Amino acid sequence: MRTVNVAILGATGVVGQELAQLLGERQFPLGNLKLLASPRSAGKKITVSGQEYVIEAVSAESFQDIDIAFFSAGGDVSKQWAPIAVAAGAVVIDNTSAFRMDPAVPLVVPEVNKEAALTHRGIIANPNCSTIIMVVALKPIYDAVGIRRIIVSTYQAVSGAGYQAMEELDAQVSAYTAQEEQTATLLPVASCEKHYPILFNAIPQIDIFDEGDYTKEEWKMINETQKIFGDTTLRITATTVRLPIMRSHCESINVETKHKMTADHCRQLLTEASGIEVVDDVQSQEYPMPIYTSGQDPVWVGRIREDRSIDCGLNLWVVGDQIRKGAALNAIQIAEYLVPNLR
Amino acid sequence: MRTVNVAILGATGVVGQELAQLLGERQFPLGNLKLLASPRSAGKKITVSGQEYVIEAVSAESFQDIDIAFFSAGGDVSKQWAPIAVAAGAVVIDNTSAFRMDPAVPLVVPEVNKEAALTHRGIIANPNCSTIIMVVALKPIYDAVGIRRIIVSTYQAVSGAGYQAMEELDAQVSAYTAQEEQTATLLPVASCEKHYPILFNAIPQIDIFDEGDYTKEEWKMINETQKIFGDTTLRITATTVRLPIMRSHCESINVETKHKMTADHCRQLLTEASGIEVVDDVQSQEYPMPIYTSGQDPVWVGRIREDRSIDCGLNLWVVGDQIRKGAALNAIQIAEYLVPNLR
Repeated sequence: MRTVNVAILGATGVVGQELAQLLGERQFPLGNLKLLASPRSAGKKITVSGQEYVIEAVSAESFQDIDIAFFSAGGDVSKQWAPIAVAAGAVVIDNTSAFRMDPAVPLVVPEVNKEAALTHRGIIANPNCSTIIMVVALKPIYDAVGIRRIIVSTYQAVSGAGYQAMEELDAQVSAYTAQEEQTATLLPVASCEKHYPILFNAIPQIDIFDEGDYTKEEWKMINETQKIFGDTTLRITATTVRLPIMRSHCESINVETKHKMTADHCRQLLTEASGIEVVDDVQSQEYPMPIYTSGQDPVWVGRIREDRSIDCGLNLWVVGDQIRKGAALNAIQIAEYLVPNLR
Repeated sequence: MRTVNVAILGATGVVGQELAQLLGERQFPLGNLKLLASPRSAGKKITVSGQEYVIEAVSAESFQDIDIAFFSAGGDVSKQWAPIAVAAGAVVIDNTSAFRMDPAVPLVVPEVNKEAALTHRGIIANPNCSTIIMVVALKPIYDAVGIRRIIVSTYQAVSGAGYQAMEELDAQVSAYTAQEEQTATLLPVASCEKHYPILFNAIPQIDIFDEGDYTKEEWKMINETQKIFGDTTLRITATTVRLPIMRSHCESINVETKHKMTADHCRQLLTEASGIEVVDDVQSQEYPMPIYTSGQDPVWVGRIREDRSIDCGLNLWVVGDQIRKGAALNAIQIAEYLVPNLR
């Protein structure tokens, strides 16, 4: 098999770092690896699989001879550089929201719609982290009995707001221990006017507010899920909440199915599904939890129960590492699926 | 107005302490106050409104001349001592789950069904904390347009598991700062075999598991809500989760109403309702959060949105101090309603 030249734009960020590590860990046929960032970060050194790389400032020449370029440096950076990378012959796998709802750009979670990746015209979008984790868990149910409606409430880790948010939580823990005042400069949204401490808190705002008083994060879970399933009749509502958790997102998902599925059937189905680990033995107090799933690949599902408030309903508790399957891992899985089809 | 002699059984616990403080703070016509606990705690001293009280061991004589006895020392203690207190002439307001589903015992949240308190035969049950907070927020909606179905996911504080759980979270913070190993001996349920750290975690188990793989906490939210509303046609499903939050519970509530209610109408209705504070101005990033609502009386409601996935649906984000309105305050409000009717 030919080797693949890869660029990572946003290599100093939390997802960029994870992308580089995962490329080293997995059986990816890596040729050259180019780590790109803004001029501010150029010259920094990063070690991947024992090899040291120097971060380069992104430029028009950065994408020559690049087969696949992972973008995770923010939506505006993607909008600026993706056309340039595509023109240079690279396939862009974009982790930002810049192109996700563009009808010409496939939005891909390999467990759900990997074939869509092959329809790309240069750009493939990687969905929102909460969306990815949810659709992986729901795909087997969708295929088996159909899904009419989804009601999801999230319990999201600070990693979704980047390294700085993880450091902010860490600093708030230190301040609490030292009996100092809590300071907050980042969460819920760095660019917003108000910032609140996350330690011992729950902030019901992720991303900025949009139509109908839903946050953009909530709209992403609604719109992206419909696009990934290719089903605009799928009815979804979402409430997204930031919590003092480091890097695994949790989701309490209520599903109204088209036909009845028992909890036992659901458990068996998900156990056999790709990318899912079922941890659901309540008599042994076994269920997924964020501190035990961080840094791991699967989407974890537990607390599978029939919802007796309707004829065809299920409750699920779904947990997944936001940086891995929620971002970097999913992007690399898209790349792995593409590799045999690269020019 | 006559004064009222009060006993608190479980006076050393987190709810017992709050009961004593609130009796001092409010315009309660307090006569004698007797603080009771197990023999193990007898002799301890507690200061209420500047006056020192000595904890007495509960005995058959404890309830002589007591008008109202608040019980918050666990279900077994309530089952043992409530009949004795009632026989001695006291009205028991029981904060445990011992009598809540007893058809002969009213289960009361004053904002919803205060009249039920007057039907007591000696015992009045104070509902589960998560239930109280939810029903206060939903009552105005229920009255205005009817409620068909409730889907609730909770974000619950450690205070619900007592002082020791708050201390355990505190100890885990200290251990994290000192880079020591996390230990857990209490959560999710002290009497269960397995215990998990709560710092940076989300534990989808509150109380022990019961029928249908729902926890007792989840069943409480379902069954108690139906009983308080006096409506067994009300369809409810719940997922309850413990989080590293100190003492305010949060709830993401999806409501299917019988008739359409706009978000604006809901906001106005709840603003006018007793016991509720609406904090819902998303353009100013105003919504309720646990660190700002702890130690306060109201049930706080924000993130009020129409749920477009159904014809008649609303999403609400509800927050309330678990120890106050979720327990001690509600019990005292029941007592305050009873006072004019005491023999």
